[in-house]
Amino acid sequence: MTHARTDVEQVELANTAFYEALERGDFDGVSDLWLDAADLADAETYTGAPDAGGDADADDEADPDDGGEGQGGADAAAEGPAISCVHPGWPVLTGRGEVLRSYALIMANTEYIQFFLTDLRVSVAGDTALVTCTENILSGGPAPQEGDELGPLVGQLVVATNVFRRTCDGWKLWSHHASPVLAETGDDEDDEPPA
Amino acid sequence: MTHARTDVEQVELANTAFYEALERGDFDGVSDLWLDAADLADAETYTGAPDAGGDADADDEADPDDGGEGQGGADAAAEGPAISCVHPGWPVLTGRGEVLRSYALIMANTEYIQFFLTDLRVSVAGDTALVTCTENILSGGPAPQEGDELGPLVGQLVVATNVFRRTCDGWKLWSHHASPVLAETGDDEDDEPPA
Repeated sequence: MTHARTDVEQVELANTAFYEALERGDFDGVSDLWLDAADLADAETYTGAPDAGGDADADDEADPDDGGEGQGGADAAAEGPAISCVHPGWPVLTGRGEVLRSYALIMANTEYIQFFLTDLRVSVAGDTALVTCTENILSGGPAPQEGDELGPLVGQLVVATNVFRRTCDGWKLWSHHASPVLAETGDDEDDEPPA
Repeated sequence: MTHARTDVEQVELANTAFYEALERGDFDGVSDLWLDAADLADAETYTGAPDAGGDADADDEADPDDGGEGQGGADAAAEGPAISCVHPGWPVLTGRGEVLRSYALIMANTEYIQFFLTDLRVSVAGDTALVTCTENILSGGPAPQEGDELGPLVGQLVVATNVFRRTCDGWKLWSHHASPVLAETGDDEDDEPPA
């Protein structure tokens, strides 16, 4: 129990460090908090061939090999395991190249960003940790005119699921998925379902 | 390698089974694919006190205990570890009660739903698997008038990150995070905007 509680604390610190690095616009800090190839050396990734293997049609169920070995699985696995990242409203980015490039892009277009994290939950099982939180974001772009200090500040309500892996260099991000909260849900009886 | 490939195949089958159960409106099938309390008995969850411990302000950095033991951690951990789920545009749902209730609600309001999965990626590390995919969703609500078979069909472009844990009863969902793809990102110069 004591060991597990320590893990939870460490994961929480790693999660906080991630958002603090984003607030500082610290690209190297953000990079260091993502798993790299060496960290994932024991992992195995399979990338489905486009439009194959991932179709949930009932027809596919009869053939458990569908989309596996037969459809480019070996080639795809050679790419190695990968981190993944979804920014609010974005498609999935996969691999350090795509993911880190996206942070460079976001930092280049963000003059100011602050995260107020609420609803934080950390769950650790073995060498993996799952963190969910609400990111109450206040951000501003570059100044629209010379002399202005900041672009207009914008508030955003975003929820995130962050998956961390234990490494010899601490807990590192394997996946970050953030999405806009667009409407209230039915998680409580008096809430309204989103349209 | 052979062992890992088998894991990847099993995870892909569990992922497909999840979407097929949703397509059939099979509530029990969906429930069976989520981790239950027994599966997560070895895990440890910490829920941050509201507005505490999750704030990424630099001030918090100086005190590593902030938000840990001192702020209701022991009480919160007593709730036990938990599954989590984010539907597109929704806040985070936590625990089997909230998560399964949301599926009952969605099924009650969905006459027809089909998932065409693309961009499937499976990555296995130890007893955890990470799946990312694009859910091309075609769905229809209840018939607006008597005699109509279905409500109007709606297409939706959604991306999902699904986290599975290995159990003695196969791979089970620990987390599902799905979000709408709202705009293009710039991850590849030659990509076309989804809008």
